[in-house]
Amino acid sequence: MTGLPDALAGLRSARRAPADFDAFWRDTLDSAAHPLDPVFTEAPSALAAATVYDTSFAGSRGHRIAAWLIVPRPAPAAGPDRSAPVPCVVQFLGYGEGRGAPLDWLLWPAVGRAVLVVDTRGQGGANLRPGDTPDPVGVTHPQVPGFVTRGVLDPAGYYYRDAYVDAVRAVDTALAHPAVDPGRIVVSGCSQGGLLALAAAALHGRVAAALVESPFLCDVTDAARLPDRQPYRELLRFCQFHPQHVGRVLDTLAYFDGVALAERAACPALFSLAMRDQVCSPASVATTYHHYAGPKRIGVWPFAGHAEPNGYQRRAEVDFVAGVLGDR
Amino acid sequence: MTGLPDALAGLRSARRAPADFDAFWRDTLDSAAHPLDPVFTEAPSALAAATVYDTSFAGSRGHRIAAWLIVPRPAPAAGPDRSAPVPCVVQFLGYGEGRGAPLDWLLWPAVGRAVLVVDTRGQGGANLRPGDTPDPVGVTHPQVPGFVTRGVLDPAGYYYRDAYVDAVRAVDTALAHPAVDPGRIVVSGCSQGGLLALAAAALHGRVAAALVESPFLCDVTDAARLPDRQPYRELLRFCQFHPQHVGRVLDTLAYFDGVALAERAACPALFSLAMRDQVCSPASVATTYHHYAGPKRIGVWPFAGHAEPNGYQRRAEVDFVAGVLGDR
Amino acid sequence: MTGLPDALAGLRSARRAPADFDAFWRDTLDSAAHPLDPVFTEAPSALAAATVYDTSFAGSRGHRIAAWLIVPRPAPAAGPDRSAPVPCVVQFLGYGEGRGAPLDWLLWPAVGRAVLVVDTRGQGGANLRPGDTPDPVGVTHPQVPGFVTRGVLDPAGYYYRDAYVDAVRAVDTALAHPAVDPGRIVVSGCSQGGLLALAAAALHGRVAAALVESPFLCDVTDAARLPDRQPYRELLRFCQFHPQHVGRVLDTLAYFDGVALAERAACPALFSLAMRDQVCSPASVATTYHHYAGPKRIGVWPFAGHAEPNGYQRRAEVDFVAGVLGDR
Amino acid sequence: MTGLPDALAGLRSARRAPADFDAFWRDTLDSAAHPLDPVFTEAPSALAAATVYDTSFAGSRGHRIAAWLIVPRPAPAAGPDRSAPVPCVVQFLGYGEGRGAPLDWLLWPAVGRAVLVVDTRGQGGANLRPGDTPDPVGVTHPQVPGFVTRGVLDPAGYYYRDAYVDAVRAVDTALAHPAVDPGRIVVSGCSQGGLLALAAAALHGRVAAALVESPFLCDVTDAARLPDRQPYRELLRFCQFHPQHVGRVLDTLAYFDGVALAERAACPALFSLAMRDQVCSPASVATTYHHYAGPKRIGVWPFAGHAEPNGYQRRAEVDFVAGVLGDR
Amino acid sequence: MTGLPDALAGLRSARRAPADFDAFWRDTLDSAAHPLDPVFTEAPSALAAATVYDTSFAGSRGHRIAAWLIVPRPAPAAGPDRSAPVPCVVQFLGYGEGRGAPLDWLLWPAVGRAVLVVDTRGQGGANLRPGDTPDPVGVTHPQVPGFVTRGVLDPAGYYYRDAYVDAVRAVDTALAHPAVDPGRIVVSGCSQGGLLALAAAALHGRVAAALVESPFLCDVTDAARLPDRQPYRELLRFCQFHPQHVGRVLDTLAYFDGVALAERAACPALFSLAMRDQVCSPASVATTYHHYAGPKRIGVWPFAGHAEPNGYQRRAEVDFVAGVLGDR
Amino acid sequence: MTGLPDALAGLRSARRAPADFDAFWRDTLDSAAHPLDPVFTEAPSALAAATVYDTSFAGSRGHRIAAWLIVPRPAPAAGPDRSAPVPCVVQFLGYGEGRGAPLDWLLWPAVGRAVLVVDTRGQGGANLRPGDTPDPVGVTHPQVPGFVTRGVLDPAGYYYRDAYVDAVRAVDTALAHPAVDPGRIVVSGCSQGGLLALAAAALHGRVAAALVESPFLCDVTDAARLPDRQPYRELLRFCQFHPQHVGRVLDTLAYFDGVALAERAACPALFSLAMRDQVCSPASVATTYHHYAGPKRIGVWPFAGHAEPNGYQRRAEVDFVAGVLGDR
Repeated sequence: MTGLPDALAGLRSARRAPADFDAFWRDTLDSAAHPLDPVFTEAPSALAAATVYDTSFAGSRGHRIAAWLIVPRPAPAAGPDRSAPVPCVVQFLGYGEGRGAPLDWLLWPAVGRAVLVVDTRGQGGANLRPGDTPDPVGVTHPQVPGFVTRGVLDPAGYYYRDAYVDAVRAVDTALAHPAVDPGRIVVSGCSQGGLLALAAAALHGRVAAALVESPFLCDVTDAARLPDRQPYRELLRFCQFHPQHVGRVLDTLAYFDGVALAERAACPALFSLAMRDQVCSPASVATTYHHYAGPKRIGVWPFAGHAEPNGYQRRAEVDFVAGVLGDR
Repeated sequence: MTGLPDALAGLRSARRAPADFDAFWRDTLDSAAHPLDPVFTEAPSALAAATVYDTSFAGSRGHRIAAWLIVPRPAPAAGPDRSAPVPCVVQFLGYGEGRGAPLDWLLWPAVGRAVLVVDTRGQGGANLRPGDTPDPVGVTHPQVPGFVTRGVLDPAGYYYRDAYVDAVRAVDTALAHPAVDPGRIVVSGCSQGGLLALAAAALHGRVAAALVESPFLCDVTDAARLPDRQPYRELLRFCQFHPQHVGRVLDTLAYFDGVALAERAACPALFSLAMRDQVCSPASVATTYHHYAGPKRIGVWPFAGHAEPNGYQRRAEVDFVAGVLGDR
Repeated sequence: MTGLPDALAGLRSARRAPADFDAFWRDTLDSAAHPLDPVFTEAPSALAAATVYDTSFAGSRGHRIAAWLIVPRPAPAAGPDRSAPVPCVVQFLGYGEGRGAPLDWLLWPAVGRAVLVVDTRGQGGANLRPGDTPDPVGVTHPQVPGFVTRGVLDPAGYYYRDAYVDAVRAVDTALAHPAVDPGRIVVSGCSQGGLLALAAAALHGRVAAALVESPFLCDVTDAARLPDRQPYRELLRFCQFHPQHVGRVLDTLAYFDGVALAERAACPALFSLAMRDQVCSPASVATTYHHYAGPKRIGVWPFAGHAEPNGYQRRAEVDFVAGVLGDR
Repeated sequence: MTGLPDALAGLRSARRAPADFDAFWRDTLDSAAHPLDPVFTEAPSALAAATVYDTSFAGSRGHRIAAWLIVPRPAPAAGPDRSAPVPCVVQFLGYGEGRGAPLDWLLWPAVGRAVLVVDTRGQGGANLRPGDTPDPVGVTHPQVPGFVTRGVLDPAGYYYRDAYVDAVRAVDTALAHPAVDPGRIVVSGCSQGGLLALAAAALHGRVAAALVESPFLCDVTDAARLPDRQPYRELLRFCQFHPQHVGRVLDTLAYFDGVALAERAACPALFSLAMRDQVCSPASVATTYHHYAGPKRIGVWPFAGHAEPNGYQRRAEVDFVAGVLGDR
Repeated sequence: MTGLPDALAGLRSARRAPADFDAFWRDTLDSAAHPLDPVFTEAPSALAAATVYDTSFAGSRGHRIAAWLIVPRPAPAAGPDRSAPVPCVVQFLGYGEGRGAPLDWLLWPAVGRAVLVVDTRGQGGANLRPGDTPDPVGVTHPQVPGFVTRGVLDPAGYYYRDAYVDAVRAVDTALAHPAVDPGRIVVSGCSQGGLLALAAAALHGRVAAALVESPFLCDVTDAARLPDRQPYRELLRFCQFHPQHVGRVLDTLAYFDGVALAERAACPALFSLAMRDQVCSPASVATTYHHYAGPKRIGVWPFAGHAEPNGYQRRAEVDFVAGVLGDR
Repeated sequence: MTGLPDALAGLRSARRAPADFDAFWRDTLDSAAHPLDPVFTEAPSALAAATVYDTSFAGSRGHRIAAWLIVPRPAPAAGPDRSAPVPCVVQFLGYGEGRGAPLDWLLWPAVGRAVLVVDTRGQGGANLRPGDTPDPVGVTHPQVPGFVTRGVLDPAGYYYRDAYVDAVRAVDTALAHPAVDPGRIVVSGCSQGGLLALAAAALHGRVAAALVESPFLCDVTDAARLPDRQPYRELLRFCQFHPQHVGRVLDTLAYFDGVALAERAACPALFSLAMRDQVCSPASVATTYHHYAGPKRIGVWPFAGHAEPNGYQRRAEVDFVAGVLGDR
C-alpha cells in the first residue's frame, strides 16, 4: 500500500452538491419508514462453524431484498460467553453480481465476523453470480439496458434512489439480528459496491467503518469525459441518443455522486485505488477520498486494473476492521 | 437474389410447438381485449408531401405504445379520388432501436404507402435511434440486462408476450386510421423486427403481406448452440448463471419461436437471409422459411452479415409489396 | 446542439495556405472549361411524388461522373405555380461510398428539395453503397490502395484535384437542370463529403449554403500526428514507406486542406463536430470552423463518434436550410 | 449437472499409453525416495476457527515446495473427541497461479476439511495469485517461455515429471500431519490443477477421492489440432519453431497424458466439463472421463467457458466429498 | 517437411478451366509481343560480391515494370571460367509489397544464384517494402480499393491479366541478361507471389523450376466460401455490393485460377502449405498441388499461419533448386 | 532520417546510476574471467562466398552460448591481400528470437563484414527464429514466465547480468577469430538487442561502433508508467503480484538501465527511434540517446512502430559502419 502519487494528491471536485441534497435524502428516508420486516430463515449449509440465514427485508417501496446472513459460531477457545454478539460486515456487490451462494462469502465469517451479503435489486446473472432479487419497478422512460439510466431523468425516480434506500435498510437488517453487535457494523464493497458502501456510511448513522474499493459514480461532473466502458457506457449511450436530457441526467446524478456522500460520512474508512483502473478513474477515486469526511486511509495499487482480485487489499481490510473495532 | 444453397434447402425444425400453443395465444389475445384507444396527433414536420401523426395506442396491459404514422398525400397526378385510403406498412424494429424521428422513415411514404413505425416497449436508446415507450412492467426474477430474459421463466410473464400483443394491436392501430386501406396492411421488420412481423402475421387475421428479414428467436431448440452474440448472449448468460432454469427457459421460448409463428401465417411473405449472419444463423432463417405456411419467396445474400444495409433487398420489398397488393 | 467546449474554442491553424493557392485553383478550373454536357435521363422508379433522373456530366478531364437527381413534384397544396423551380441539395459522399440507388436518398425530396447525389470518382463498393463512376486516371507512382495517396506527390496530379473539379461541376450540373432554382443550391456532406462540400462552397460562386459534417483532410500540418485510422491510415503508410516524400506530400495537401477552403467560402454554413471522433479530430474540425469565412453555426455532439447516424443534426440541417433559403 | 451430450458420449482415445508407462513412473517415484522432510510452521493468521501452517516439503530432486495447510478447529458442537483427525483436500493450482495467502483458501476449512494448497514449482505471479516456490531446474534446451515446453524433448527431463512427483509428495505431506485423517485424502484442481489431481490419484495409492475440473493435457495425440490458446500455445510455438522435434514432443507427452493417468486411477472422481471451453476441449475432457477407471460422475455445463467461476460445481464437489467420505 | 494429412490428400477441384482458357492466354501473349526493351543499369551498392542492376522492362501494354537484378560475382574459388552465366531466380512478391532495396534480397545471391525481384504493378507501400512501378491503367468500373477487383468484370480488362503478362515478361527479362544462364531460370513467390510463379511456370516455356508458397487465388469456385481476410476480402466486398456481378466475377477468375495454371505447368515444383493458413486455405493449396502437372514436392507446416517466416522452407528451397539444377 | 522533434529534444533522465554501478560491473566481469574457450566449427552451408562457423563460447558462469560466425570470403577483385582480416558485426537479438540459421543473417557478409549472431541465453522459439542456447540457471524465486523477471530481486542474480556478460564475451569471441579484424568490431541490435549492444559498448573496451535500434529497458524509473506490452508486461505483472518487491525490482534494474550504459560508452553510435513505438517509448529512446557519451547520430522515423522492418535504417547503418571504419 503506497501513497497517492503527486498527480492525484491535490485533486478536489469542481462541483458542490445540490443545495437540497440533505433534504432530498432526509425526505427519501423519511418516506421509507415502512416496517423493515426482516426475515432470517436458517438455511441448511455445509458450513461447519457458521450458521447461514436466508435473509430478506423490506427495502425501498417495500420490495423484498434478498441477502445471506452468515454468522460464525464462536471459536472453541472463545470461553464462557459464547453467545456474545459479533461484528457484522454488510457487503454490497459490484455491477451485475448477485448474492450467489453462502459458499461464495467465506472471508468475514472465517475471521470471526458475520457477513450480510445484500443483493442489488434486479441484478445478478450478468456477472459472476446469480441474484435472487427482482426489480419490480417498471420504468417511465426508455433506457439503455441495465440499471444506470433507469429513471435517470428525475432523482425521485432514479434506480439508485431505491438502491441506496435498500443499502441503508440492509444496515438496519444487520442491526435487527440478535447475533450481531449493533455497535460494530462495517459496510464494504467494490465498484458499485463501493458506492453503496459510501451511501450507507453517509446516510445511516450507525456504521462503524467503511471499506470502499474503486467506487463507481464518483465526481461525475462532465458526462462527456466518462470512459466508454461499462457501466459508464450506459450513461454515454443514453446521452448520445437523448442529448436534450444531458443536463437532467447530470442534475439527477448530483444527488447520488460518491463525492457528496463522502463529504457526509463520519466513520473511519479504508479506500483502495487501482492506478490502471479504466472504469473508475484514479482521479475520481482520489477526489472522493480527499472529500471523505471521516478518518481515512487508502491503498494505492500502481499495477492493478479495475476490480482485479487483490489479496493484499483484502488482508489490509481485515486488519483495518480489527483496528477500528479494537477487538484484535 | 439467389436460391437457397443446397446445405440449407432441406432444413426442418426438430421440434413441434407446444400442444396448447394456439390456446395460449387465443387466451392471451382474448385477455387483451381492452379498448385500443388509438391517438393520432398531427405533428408539425418538414415533410412536403406527407402528414405525420404522433401516434399511440393501448398495447398489452393497457400500456401506451408510441408510434409514428406517416401518410403520404396523394401524388399530384393521382386524379379525382384523392381521398382514397392508402396501404400501410407496419414497421417493427430491431433490438434496441426506437422509433426515432419521422425523417428516419421515409421509404414507404416515398413509394406511396403509409408507414406505422412502432416502438418496441422499453427499447430505444441503445441502438441507432431513441424510443419513446417505457416498459412499465417490473420483473419478478432477476434477469440479464436487456429484454430477452425478462420474465423468461413463465410464458405468461415473458416480455415478448407483451411485445407480441403490442405488435398485434399495432396492426389494429393501422386499421383504425381512416387514411389506411384496411385490406392492404403489410408487416415488416428485420431481426427482432422480423420476429415481430412474423408474430403479427401469425396472430392477426388481417395482414396482407409480410416482409421478414433475418428473424430473431427462430428454431431455438438447443440453447447451448446459440451464438455468443447479442441479443442471444442474454439467453446464454442467463442459462449459465441459472442452469436449473434452462428447461423452463426453453419451455417458455417454445411459445414464441418464429418457426411456430411461421406455421400459422397465411399471407404472402418475402424473407431475406444473410449467409454470413453470425447472430440469426442462416440455418435458423432457412428453417423458418421452410415452415412458413403462406406463399413465400426469399432473398439470399451470400456476402452479407446480420442486418447489414441492403438496398437490393429494400427494392425487392418495394416490388414484392406492389405485386402482392396488385396496385402497380 | 451545444457550444464548443473551451478547449476547442481558441484553436487556429498554425499554417497559411500556399501563396499560389488561389492561382492554382483558378488555373485548375480554367483548364477544366470543357463543356459540361449534362445528361438527365428519367429513370423508372417506385417513387410516388418525385422524378428520378439518372444523371451524368463531364467532370474533370472530361470523365463522366454519375449522379442521381431526384426532383420532388410540387405538393398537392402547392397552388397554381406548380412548375416553379425548387432548391437543390448537392450531396457529396463519404469515403468509399457510392451513389447507390434513388431509394437511398429520400430525405431532401421529402422536405421539398431536389437532391443531386454525386458519385466520388472510383469510389463505391467498399462502404455502404455501390457507385457507378470509375476513375480512368492511371497513377504515375505506386500508392497505398485507396484514393488518398493517388498522385499525392504533385498537386497537379493529385486525386482530389479531379475530385474537387468534379464537385464544382456537380454544382454546375444542378444549375443546368430547369427544375432547379439556381439561386438556391446547397452543398452537403460528411467526412470526405464534408470536405467536398467545403471545396464546392469555396470554389464555386453560386452556392447558397453549406452543410459540413466532420470534414476530412482539415488542418493537416503534421502527418506524424494523424490517427492510424482510415482514410488517414493511407497517408501514414505512404509516409512510412516513402519517408523521403513526406515533405512533398504535405506540400501537395496544402492545396487541398479544408482550412484553406473554409477561408475562401462565403455562404452560410452549418458544421457538425463529434467529440468522440477518432478519425477527423475535434480539434481539426473546430479549427476549420473558426477559419470559415461565411456566416456559420456548429452542432457539437459530445457523445458521438465519427460519422455516426445523428437524427438531431439531420433535423437541424433541414431547419438551417429552410432558414437560409427563407422559404419556410 | 446435466448428462454428456450424445456427440461426446462415445469418445475414446485413439492412442495407448507407452508400453513402459508404468515402469517409467515406478522408476521415477523410486528414484524420488529421498526423505520428505515436511515442515509445518504455524503462521499467524486472522482466521478465527482454523490453524494455518506455512508448509513446505522436499519435492522432486529434493527441491522445497511451498504450501499452506489450513486445519479447521473442531466445531463447538463437535462433541468429546475434539482431537480427531480431519479429512484433507490437497488442492492443485491452475497454470500460472501460486498459493497466494491463506485467506484465499477458505472453502474446505469452512466445510470442516483441512486443505493443503500446493504451489506448482516456478509458477505464481502471472495469474491470480503469487507463489513462493522457485523452479531451480535450469533447462537443457531453449523453450517457449512458460513451463509446458521445459525439457519437453525427453520424459526424464520434462517439467511435469518434477511437477507430478511434487504432487505425489504433496499427498505424502498431507499424510504426514497428525491432524489429517490418512484415510480421507482428496485431491482437487482445475485445468493444470485437474491434471495434477489426476496424476496424484493415479500415482499415489492412498487417495480417497478426486475432483477433476477441465483437466489440461488430456488426449494430446495430434499437436496440430490443439487450440492456439494458453497454455497449449506454448506447445504450438515450440513445434512451429522446432518442427524436427514434433515427434519427440508427442513421445514425451505420452508419459504425462491425462488419459493414461485416468486409466490408472481407482478412487471415486467427480469431473466437470465446460461445453464452451476453448482451452481444454470438451472432447478431450469427455475422453478422459470415459477412460477414468474408478467410480465417476461428471458435471456438464453447457454455457460455461474454461475455468469460469462455477458455484454449482463447487457445491457439487462439497457434496460429493461428503458422500464419498461418508461423514455427512 | 511432413506429408499431407489424410483430410487433404484426396482433394481435387470441382471445376474445369474454361474451354478457351488456352486460347485466351495464347491470344493475350500474342498481343503482348511488343519489344521487351530491357534496361539494366548498374547501380551503386554496398554489396561486396554482387553486382546490382536497376532493371526495367516493357511489361503488359508496354508499361515499364521495375525490378532489381542482383548477380553474384563468381566465388574466389570458382576456377578459370569466371564469366560463366549463373542460374537466376525470378522472385514475385506478396500482395502489397514492392521491390524495396537490393539489401532486402540477399538470399539467392548468397547461394550463388542471380535474383530478379520484380515489382507487381501498382503495388508496394502498403506492406513491408515500397515499390517503384505505377499501374497506369485506369479502371472502367468502380472497384474495391486494391487490385483484386480492378477490371474483374471482364477477363480482358482484369488487373491480373496485366500482372501475368508482366510475370511472363519478367522471365524474358532474366533471359535477356548475359550473366544469366537461360537454361536455369527458377520462378518463386509466396501468396500472390506464388500465384505469379505458377502463372510464369504455366505460361512461359523456359522455366526450369518453380517455388510456390501458399499461393493465392487457387480453386476459387464459390466466392461465398472465401475467408473474410485480405486480399480475399476485396472480392467479398465487391460481390456484396454488386451481387448482380458475382457470376461475371467468377467467370473472370476462372481464367486466372491457380489450379488451371498448375495443370499447365511442366517444370519441377516445390510447394509449401501452412496448416493454420487463414488466408489461402490448406484445402485450396493442396488441391492446386494435386493438379500440378510437373514433378512436385510439398512442404507441409502444421503449426504455421499464412506467409509466416519459415527458415526451414527457405532451406528446402535452396536445396530443391540445387537438386533440380544439378549444380551442387 | 529526420531530426528529433522538439518534444523529445530536451529529455534527460531524472535518475542517476547507483553509486556502485561501475564497481558492480567491474566485479562482475572480474568474476567472469574463466577461459572463453571459443569453438568455431566450420559448418556446411549453401553460401557461395562465405564460410560459416557454428560457434560457441563459455559465457557467464561458463555456460556455453551458441552463435553463428559468418565470414565473407574476399571479393574476387579484392586484390593480393586476400587473407586480410575483416570487420565483424556482433549481432544481438530481440526478445524471444534465436540465432536461427545462417541463411537468416546475410546482410553483413553481403557488404563485406563478418557477422557473429549471438543467441540470448534461453531464448529462441517464441519469436521469429529458434535458438540453440539453454539457460541452465534455475531461479530462486517465482517469476513471470519469460526472462525479464528472472532473478530480478537481486542484481547479482538477475538474468540480464548473465546476458550482459554473455554479450561482452561475445565480443571477445569475435576478437578471438583470426579472420576478424580486432580493431573493427561493431555491436548491433534492436529492442533487447539494442540494449545488449549498449551493454557491450559500455562494458567492453574494444568496440569500434554501435548500432542501437529502439533499445529496451531504458530510463525505467517508474515501473507504474511502463506500457502494458511485452516484454514490459512481465515487469508489470510481477510488480502487481509482488507489490512489496517493487522497490527491489527498481533497485535491480538500475544496474542494467540503458541510460547508465549509454553514459559509459565511448564509441560512435547510430541510434534509431520509431515515433509510433508502443513498447520502447520515444521518450525513453531519446533520453538514452541524449545520455550517450560517444559520438552519435539518430534516425527518427515518424511513422514506424516498434521494431518494424525498416530498410532505410538498415542502409544508414551500412553507411555509418563504413564511415566509422573508414574503409569505403
